[in-house]
Amino acid sequence: MRLLRFGEFEQEKPAVELLDGTRIDVSAFGEDYTEKFFATDGLARLAAWVEANADSCPKVPIEARIGSCIARPSKIVCIGLNYAKHAEETNAPIPKEPIIFFKSTTALCGPYDNVIIPKNSVKTDWEVELAIVIGKKASYVTEEEAMDYVAGYALHNDYSEREFQIERGGQWVKGKSCDTFAPLGPFMATKDEIENPNDLPLWLTVNGEKLQNSNTDDMIFKVPFLIHYLSQFMTLLPGDVISTGTPFGVGLGFKPPRYLKADDVVELGIDGLGTQRQIAVDYKKAE
Amino acid sequence: MRLLRFGEFEQEKPAVELLDGTRIDVSAFGEDYTEKFFATDGLARLAAWVEANADSCPKVPIEARIGSCIARPSKIVCIGLNYAKHAEETNAPIPKEPIIFFKSTTALCGPYDNVIIPKNSVKTDWEVELAIVIGKKASYVTEEEAMDYVAGYALHNDYSEREFQIERGGQWVKGKSCDTFAPLGPFMATKDEIENPNDLPLWLTVNGEKLQNSNTDDMIFKVPFLIHYLSQFMTLLPGDVISTGTPFGVGLGFKPPRYLKADDVVELGIDGLGTQRQIAVDYKKAE
Repeated sequence: MRLLRFGEFEQEKPAVELLDGTRIDVSAFGEDYTEKFFATDGLARLAAWVEANADSCPKVPIEARIGSCIARPSKIVCIGLNYAKHAEETNAPIPKEPIIFFKSTTALCGPYDNVIIPKNSVKTDWEVELAIVIGKKASYVTEEEAMDYVAGYALHNDYSEREFQIERGGQWVKGKSCDTFAPLGPFMATKDEIENPNDLPLWLTVNGEKLQNSNTDDMIFKVPFLIHYLSQFMTLLPGDVISTGTPFGVGLGFKPPRYLKADDVVELGIDGLGTQRQIAVDYKKAE
Repeated sequence: MRLLRFGEFEQEKPAVELLDGTRIDVSAFGEDYTEKFFATDGLARLAAWVEANADSCPKVPIEARIGSCIARPSKIVCIGLNYAKHAEETNAPIPKEPIIFFKSTTALCGPYDNVIIPKNSVKTDWEVELAIVIGKKASYVTEEEAMDYVAGYALHNDYSEREFQIERGGQWVKGKSCDTFAPLGPFMATKDEIENPNDLPLWLTVNGEKLQNSNTDDMIFKVPFLIHYLSQFMTLLPGDVISTGTPFGVGLGFKPPRYLKADDVVELGIDGLGTQRQIAVDYKKAE
């Protein structure tokens, strides 16, 4: 099943993409894709409801804005330097255990929204990533049971302001949390749709030029280990997002580095999880 | 006005402490202290409601558990090394601009709850801090207008696992996010109650021995600057918590370092914001 959300920012309605690609408005189901939805077996309840009611649901208007595929979660946890070649391009050593940082949930937006280059930013960068959506509360989970805690997967662009992140006095969250820095979607695919999350091609282009082109099989720490690992340090809640790191090809890695400027077009995708497209705009124009 | 919450964990009810110290159950007001409450002028609405209805409100039972003084916010943002002598004790240079890190909101708990020493922890440490509660959405706020965005203040113990934080491969969030690592309260005092947040004595004892004893006037970056600064990197939402850093006297700073063990008693306070008391328990006993 594919979950998505449409409508104005922060007023999105829930929708489902059917197997034939039709997108139906499931507002009549009465729930958004929140922590409570995932915590109360919402996926199974929704699937049964769609089975019974799909024919009577309105279609999502073709011109509708697509929002973040799930509602604002309690947290977005990101994994740093989780692809060996990406660690290399940023001159960082291969991590011995996962690097964890958070992204403010206010950064969430839709997959086709403009990305706003923040005020005073000169180093806005891209990062195509596989995001995991957690399905149930996870604390001290073993690697063997970790997959039971997955609700599904989505495409995520972990936008990063490199000066804020690296040159402004420590802790990466500072460069990861600006508004529009977390386009998520277009849809969350439930776990059953993705045969192997550790073998998914992913790519990103800027103005049509392919700059990231890899596969999640290059991840140093795989999906089950990441869930296990994170759950040793914090409780993961239903609906929480884990973004699993980005492969080689970010702007920071070029010599000289390449960063986004207004009107640049960023496109990205993961096989089975759809594509995104963002146009970069300056903060002033976005106001 | 002083806002607090009582009852079982995650089922807390809202309460208000009156000027004479009486604590009344304001469940009949119909709202918890959430983002929506703060965003919709909840403080003014509640004050008016209490004025009219205090006499008919039940008292908070004396034996009731006190919870976090506000409901789970969108984020807890913490400031690192914001007291010069504390930076010194941790062998860190004085920051040129604020260090920012996040704490998982699942760490929130009440001021008298046990602090759980996490599984595999050997370096659980304490940090008394002044926390700011944000009153309205803040993005690119100037230092001059920053105080308009404050709803109030609360006492916070920013518990930290130093091995997780420092020795496990980067980014402090890893040592800041365990369950029970963010006791907040006993109450949130509205802004008008605290004449000058930048001049408040704060202290912490372990088993009766005073280990932290300072004043917020020692903060390198003051309250208005912190709000201004953070809002350049992320949007702060109503109800968000900013914890402003801890003074000299954490366990990490002793030679040799001192960390919590089961049955240790941690007490802390800030003038005008009440006191907290936690007993340390091992993870296994807490299960």
